[in-house]
Amino acid sequence: MSETIASGDYVLLFLDEKRKWLVRVREGEVLHTHKGVVDLGSLMGMPYGCMVKSSKGEEFFVVKPTLADFALKAKRATQIIYPKDLGFILMNLAVGRGSRVVEAGTGSGVLTGVLASWVMPEGRVYSYEVREEFLKVARKNLERMGVMDYVELKNKDVVEGIEEGDVDAVVLDMATPWLVVGHAYRVLKAGRVMASFSPTIEQVQKTVLEMEKVGFVDVRTYECFLREMIVKEGRTRPESFIVGHTGYITFGRKVIRDI
Amino acid sequence: MSETIASGDYVLLFLDEKRKWLVRVREGEVLHTHKGVVDLGSLMGMPYGCMVKSSKGEEFFVVKPTLADFALKAKRATQIIYPKDLGFILMNLAVGRGSRVVEAGTGSGVLTGVLASWVMPEGRVYSYEVREEFLKVARKNLERMGVMDYVELKNKDVVEGIEEGDVDAVVLDMATPWLVVGHAYRVLKAGRVMASFSPTIEQVQKTVLEMEKVGFVDVRTYECFLREMIVKEGRTRPESFIVGHTGYITFGRKVIRDI
Amino acid sequence: MSETIASGDYVLLFLDEKRKWLVRVREGEVLHTHKGVVDLGSLMGMPYGCMVKSSKGEEFFVVKPTLADFALKAKRATQIIYPKDLGFILMNLAVGRGSRVVEAGTGSGVLTGVLASWVMPEGRVYSYEVREEFLKVARKNLERMGVMDYVELKNKDVVEGIEEGDVDAVVLDMATPWLVVGHAYRVLKAGRVMASFSPTIEQVQKTVLEMEKVGFVDVRTYECFLREMIVKEGRTRPESFIVGHTGYITFGRKVIRDI
Amino acid sequence: MSETIASGDYVLLFLDEKRKWLVRVREGEVLHTHKGVVDLGSLMGMPYGCMVKSSKGEEFFVVKPTLADFALKAKRATQIIYPKDLGFILMNLAVGRGSRVVEAGTGSGVLTGVLASWVMPEGRVYSYEVREEFLKVARKNLERMGVMDYVELKNKDVVEGIEEGDVDAVVLDMATPWLVVGHAYRVLKAGRVMASFSPTIEQVQKTVLEMEKVGFVDVRTYECFLREMIVKEGRTRPESFIVGHTGYITFGRKVIRDI
Repeated sequence: MSETIASGDYVLLFLDEKRKWLVRVREGEVLHTHKGVVDLGSLMGMPYGCMVKSSKGEEFFVVKPTLADFALKAKRATQIIYPKDLGFILMNLAVGRGSRVVEAGTGSGVLTGVLASWVMPEGRVYSYEVREEFLKVARKNLERMGVMDYVELKNKDVVEGIEEGDVDAVVLDMATPWLVVGHAYRVLKAGRVMASFSPTIEQVQKTVLEMEKVGFVDVRTYECFLREMIVKEGRTRPESFIVGHTGYITFGRKVIRDI
Repeated sequence: MSETIASGDYVLLFLDEKRKWLVRVREGEVLHTHKGVVDLGSLMGMPYGCMVKSSKGEEFFVVKPTLADFALKAKRATQIIYPKDLGFILMNLAVGRGSRVVEAGTGSGVLTGVLASWVMPEGRVYSYEVREEFLKVARKNLERMGVMDYVELKNKDVVEGIEEGDVDAVVLDMATPWLVVGHAYRVLKAGRVMASFSPTIEQVQKTVLEMEKVGFVDVRTYECFLREMIVKEGRTRPESFIVGHTGYITFGRKVIRDI
Repeated sequence: MSETIASGDYVLLFLDEKRKWLVRVREGEVLHTHKGVVDLGSLMGMPYGCMVKSSKGEEFFVVKPTLADFALKAKRATQIIYPKDLGFILMNLAVGRGSRVVEAGTGSGVLTGVLASWVMPEGRVYSYEVREEFLKVARKNLERMGVMDYVELKNKDVVEGIEEGDVDAVVLDMATPWLVVGHAYRVLKAGRVMASFSPTIEQVQKTVLEMEKVGFVDVRTYECFLREMIVKEGRTRPESFIVGHTGYITFGRKVIRDI
Repeated sequence: MSETIASGDYVLLFLDEKRKWLVRVREGEVLHTHKGVVDLGSLMGMPYGCMVKSSKGEEFFVVKPTLADFALKAKRATQIIYPKDLGFILMNLAVGRGSRVVEAGTGSGVLTGVLASWVMPEGRVYSYEVREEFLKVARKNLERMGVMDYVELKNKDVVEGIEEGDVDAVVLDMATPWLVVGHAYRVLKAGRVMASFSPTIEQVQKTVLEMEKVGFVDVRTYECFLREMIVKEGRTRPESFIVGHTGYITFGRKVIRDI
């Protein structure tokens, strides 16, 4: 009824809801916390779900990371996309196992990794990023998620063009998505979906306008909010301070008017 | 650059944002709308993304359905889970391709199908439902989504027990989830996540209490809101009437205290 | 411990949360409902809070209307401003008893009436409305609220100018507020607040830009959401369908840079 | 077109949206900020809306405080009620100029002051608070707002009873509102409204249950959210971090079943 932790595994160390660490298990590695030092090498051979004590006797649990954990604990080159938005994007693309997806920009690679988890192992994510230093961070995050084999990181400016063709989805998370809408339309399979994530209204307005112009239909923009409900006996209430805005998500479907 | 529509395909017919139909392409089948009749047989051999005219000359586009489309257009035996919640649940489970997941109840089968799409083809979803008439509806929806091969529908009362063991996730969407938390803990692999979706606070309170009692940690409850932003030149604004509440989503991780 | 209902009083007849009527008590007047006829004349001399039976024996309660009731039950010439927004606007103006306020447009007169209730009896609301038919509706609503003596309805286009000077607040609820921002700045007392209510982002963008240009500081825009929580034993939950958007509210303070 | 600042006036010093101070103008008083010292005595005789320079040459504007400013800048003995909630409560009470209102507990006196501003000068607010140290803070805040003459602060436990009778509203903001619902019903005029503000669901559940039991009708609970929209040319977006929850507001109307 349990899996064994192996060398090289990324595990989540859980102290309490506010304090979790995503770490790699390896001989000789340790995690320093204000609650003492945790010997990560000692976890090898232990079952997932087990408890481990720090040098100060504090109890940590060792659990399997989820995609949300990989996202929230990612090394950050840029603002990340949150799990609420990642999941919603996935649900609204017409992709599945084996699909080929173009993404730009790579940023911290969180969305890249979630897309790769969805299309792997036959599928591929082609991810464009003009800033090389972001690609280094993204590669690190993708290796942690174990999906680097299904991703092609491309240090190119997507505004100049998309090299792939006949892809199942195009997903944009960049400052000027409207400049790539034409390329997206060209390389996307007809009948499929492109998505764009943007923090500001003006980005959305320009992108929607361009999408409608080049021939996308069913162009819709959403905002997704998340609020934790603190459930405690006799004191149940929503959390007091929350993330009020991450970004708007726009979807559109490529159709062909003249066949 | 285009895929061809085949007999048996489920396609989405798009008229405008408010009017879309999920239909099956087959010789002799037609769709009746207030905008005229669409000959579904005539779509065979056409490319995805194409336009088709109804008997009244109205233009419909034929596109690939997304998981969100399958969810929103599902035949309904029960209240469905919305795409915003479906995606968020996926992100917070520790599952992937090949995982084995227990779900209860099946309801309309929407969550079942999304889970199956995620774990297929090696993985399995074992879905419990006590009401046989729901299973009929769910089977229909799962066949549409093309994932019936990866699902085992079980006409059993999950409150009496879960027959599988060593599973990667347990997901509950039922009236009395707290009665199943003990079973869930027992059959779940240590270090993995269970999730529960409930519309009311009292369901959440009982479930959280029980989860903490049997040994889940990192028990958290969320509410996810979605609002469309209507983007039109000079008249951009959020939509006036929205879904204000679907349900609360609770997650917890199984740990083992005494090894 | 009770007040007596008099001829001419506006009262709220309460059947259940979804069915309430704002009616005037007068000899010979009746209210027709699907639950029977209520004799409004019979209420004279009865105490507030009493129960009255319709011709079908259905029980209605007779209560004192609140400003929220007057707002929600107003005769509508235009979209009304909701109580959540009305109250928030009041809190952010620098006005009180005796203040003089300019408003445009009058619309259905709901905001006019709330402002008048706040500044009465010494204060005044000067309300501009270019469409005469709106003024008729507004007058009706203001008479119901009993504040017509403290309001001056002006059938003029506020874009052409504001005739009052030295006022304590300017409040705009109109299609083109940015065209009135200059006038508002001119007639407002220094150190006081102007407010503008608009449904669309573009209106807000133009208005904020103009406000910053003419010399307002602390220019802030808010959106206020309201959701009912349905509290029932064992079934407590937020309401399923809600108003997702009414409008954005912008405030700014007039300052003088060159003294 | 301008009012003159007098000794004893409370004014708002505005540096930018995040930095505002509510201060009293008096000979010899100064405000210390990280942007230098402001001589408050020098403001006497200056017009509202004027600019004043700190010792470091930084520019501050001097404006009239709003009720929202008094609320947000109040000295805090307890969690305050926010302007969005204050305004919404006002709109839903059946009170106006001259009304008599009972409130408990006084807390920091913010709601007390807003109620007093609404019913003054003929009306009165009777405010119960069991903790004497809170009353000291409240008195200070009420004096700032200039409404202490219309408030009677009572250092008594409202759970033991309400001494007034025939009041126009009862407003509760306390840990155990359900214990006071019976008293509230007794002293409230029939046909009028009581309100209760509580952060947790359990408080709301007990209070609603008790209100329905003693004879209130139209018992409704709301949650009010506020989000700022940051409006900047080309970068308009909702604010990133917001207050996610302050409290639930419950209203009910007293009716008499047996007359």
